[in-house]
Amino acid sequence: MTDINETHDPKLRSWVESANSEHADFPIQNLPFGRFRRANSDDPLRIGVAIGDQVLDLKAAGLVDHADMNLLMAATPAERHALRKAISAGLAEGSGKQVVWARALTAQSAVTMAVPCQIGDYTDFYVGIHHATTVGKLFRPDNPLMPNYKWVPIGYHGRASSIGVSGQRFRRPMGQLKGEAAAPVLGPTQRLDYELELGFFAGTGNALGESIPIGQAEQHLFGVCLFNDWSARDIQAWEYQPLGPFLAKNFASTVSPWIVTMEALAPFRAAPFERPAGDPQPLPYLDSAANRESGALDINLEVWLQTAKMRAAGEGAVRLTRGNARQAAYWTPAQLITHHTVNGCNLQPGDLLGSGTLSGPESDQAGSLLELTLGGKQPITLPNGERHAFLQDGDTLTMRGWCERAGAARIGLGEVSGTVLPNASPL
Amino acid sequence: MTDINETHDPKLRSWVESANSEHADFPIQNLPFGRFRRANSDDPLRIGVAIGDQVLDLKAAGLVDHADMNLLMAATPAERHALRKAISAGLAEGSGKQVVWARALTAQSAVTMAVPCQIGDYTDFYVGIHHATTVGKLFRPDNPLMPNYKWVPIGYHGRASSIGVSGQRFRRPMGQLKGEAAAPVLGPTQRLDYELELGFFAGTGNALGESIPIGQAEQHLFGVCLFNDWSARDIQAWEYQPLGPFLAKNFASTVSPWIVTMEALAPFRAAPFERPAGDPQPLPYLDSAANRESGALDINLEVWLQTAKMRAAGEGAVRLTRGNARQAAYWTPAQLITHHTVNGCNLQPGDLLGSGTLSGPESDQAGSLLELTLGGKQPITLPNGERHAFLQDGDTLTMRGWCERAGAARIGLGEVSGTVLPNASPL
Repeated sequence: MTDINETHDPKLRSWVESANSEHADFPIQNLPFGRFRRANSDDPLRIGVAIGDQVLDLKAAGLVDHADMNLLMAATPAERHALRKAISAGLAEGSGKQVVWARALTAQSAVTMAVPCQIGDYTDFYVGIHHATTVGKLFRPDNPLMPNYKWVPIGYHGRASSIGVSGQRFRRPMGQLKGEAAAPVLGPTQRLDYELELGFFAGTGNALGESIPIGQAEQHLFGVCLFNDWSARDIQAWEYQPLGPFLAKNFASTVSPWIVTMEALAPFRAAPFERPAGDPQPLPYLDSAANRESGALDINLEVWLQTAKMRAAGEGAVRLTRGNARQAAYWTPAQLITHHTVNGCNLQPGDLLGSGTLSGPESDQAGSLLELTLGGKQPITLPNGERHAFLQDGDTLTMRGWCERAGAARIGLGEVSGTVLPNASPL
Repeated sequence: MTDINETHDPKLRSWVESANSEHADFPIQNLPFGRFRRANSDDPLRIGVAIGDQVLDLKAAGLVDHADMNLLMAATPAERHALRKAISAGLAEGSGKQVVWARALTAQSAVTMAVPCQIGDYTDFYVGIHHATTVGKLFRPDNPLMPNYKWVPIGYHGRASSIGVSGQRFRRPMGQLKGEAAAPVLGPTQRLDYELELGFFAGTGNALGESIPIGQAEQHLFGVCLFNDWSARDIQAWEYQPLGPFLAKNFASTVSPWIVTMEALAPFRAAPFERPAGDPQPLPYLDSAANRESGALDINLEVWLQTAKMRAAGEGAVRLTRGNARQAAYWTPAQLITHHTVNGCNLQPGDLLGSGTLSGPESDQAGSLLELTLGGKQPITLPNGERHAFLQDGDTLTMRGWCERAGAARIGLGEVSGTVLPNASPL
């Protein structure tokens, strides 16, 4: 019997040659799940696993007998491990499956990806303490971090229906804008922003009324994606009190197409953000030895921008930010799961938990333009001379994420990309 | 061809005799939709229409060929009208359908009701201006109504997964409680409350990126239910800044089982709450002549409480509150639909919009205990001598709603009931 740890062996190679590059996002040690159909077709969605530059169709490979990602996500950890081991064994160099499974492969360039599962409920958290502090200063100069921040993993419910997959194009949203004038006006947002986040997908859920102890929390986590929580800062500033952001966020949110499983991320677990001296320790229900030791995720993150002018000139995107999730997050995914359910709230397979904006401690590690430009006061200058305070029509924003360390295969999260259209343009 | 207005004729009578009482919630002029199965069975859910004390099985009556309420809700207004007219004609006294449809009836006492549709996203609004003012004073004495309140129909996203149907029983939720001490503690809420709301179900949705003009908003409204937005005030006070309520609300919310359609409510439309002199008028996108004339709903509301002690003594529930939705709501359902989609956010059939707590201007019209007891400072005394500041274990809270006026048949919304269990009890 293969051990689950053997699926991480950096020496493992696949008969899918493109998976063996040391720069590949999707080597055989990764095996992320997504939903796809043939490009430009109306075919029903199928469950696939990314391997190099290919997609393995799990049903065609005989590994599942359905196309329901949420059902797959509801599997027990043991079932998930067994599936991972079967996929790994079949894709490994020398596997007897090669002849049959080669027919279950499609080039990623020939498929269209969808949101990877049916997202029932979506919750957004606020674990980025550097983000919370910097943004808090802009909205509330005298009171940047609320007294609850270091006790409560702050979260709120978001909109599931408007979550799209990488490649999403959306119109600049309209909303009530309240400047210095006495009355607000309706108009397109002038302060459109991105937020660099990770998305955590729930696997097996909990029954309504039951909570998930922190020691079991990770068994309910299926995997991770990149997540862009587009935000309209002017709409947000006017609407958010007292019940939180609403139209400032729910016009679009974008996920990367591949869910990288917790099993694939096992080699990249790390001790969480070290709480500064004087900070309270987590309450007992949010604390465990395992969480203190390796509750965090060591994931590198980058944000890239290509403006319409750059695209027209054939210029590639420029990097705005680089950072690391572990250095940004005050709370771990396990703490989020446990806090979310401590009152009996039920998670269901496929539910999405956003991390909140993952800004690092340095100013060039900011996960939003609000931070990078100090609320728009200090626009950034791009290499072609364009100045950006907030996102402009035609901008394409791309986030990338990956894990690497000596002695382990690189695990990529792929990318999440989205484009801002003028308010009146067709979609 | 029957006119849709004829389905409201107060002289219409049904061959289902119990529907003809002048006190019936569900006369032939109502015809609300719900999902049911035989009591204590695992049968698949079926779509039913309440008529008197019976349920008409729409599929057994040959009126639909499926059991998918969301599909029915996605119908065009013309299709909905045609269905209403067919049901009305078939249930009317003297109908030739009587012999066949009598076999499609089941007593309501012999069925179990479910949440009436699959709720994709749930949004809670805050249209009760008396509630917002009174509660605002408790949380922010110097600043009860935020400057945005009279411009923006304030709303936020809630949790869909924990919405249950009337009869829901839930454990008193745990959460972080922060009293006067320096550190919060985890414990069962000590300030459990109800909120008297209406729930508005979306019918046909809108495409992501498209907004719904106010003149078309009501075509996207399917119907109305009663809604109890249970709230843990101590958890809420500690967690809600800056992103809004979360665990204080998402442990349970309860809907009444019958969706009373906008068609049934047509005789009870009224001019909205009259804005006091000095209040701004709605921005143009939230304004229309039709909305000013008849955008509101004239629905009477009541809240009843039965404690465990009362139940043990065989004593019925006591009324805590009575009021009217029209007098409580600063914004109309059409304004909520239009505001929700002005940024392109997509509504889908079955989405639920809560009104927010519908408290009247008088203190005995308060839609929550927070208001009735002034934040718990003035407990209410029940007829049996019990004193209640907030909800106690074993309390059953029931809300009722109905419309009546001279020259129209009474239209009932039925009731929504829920019971608080001790924190450690089995569900």
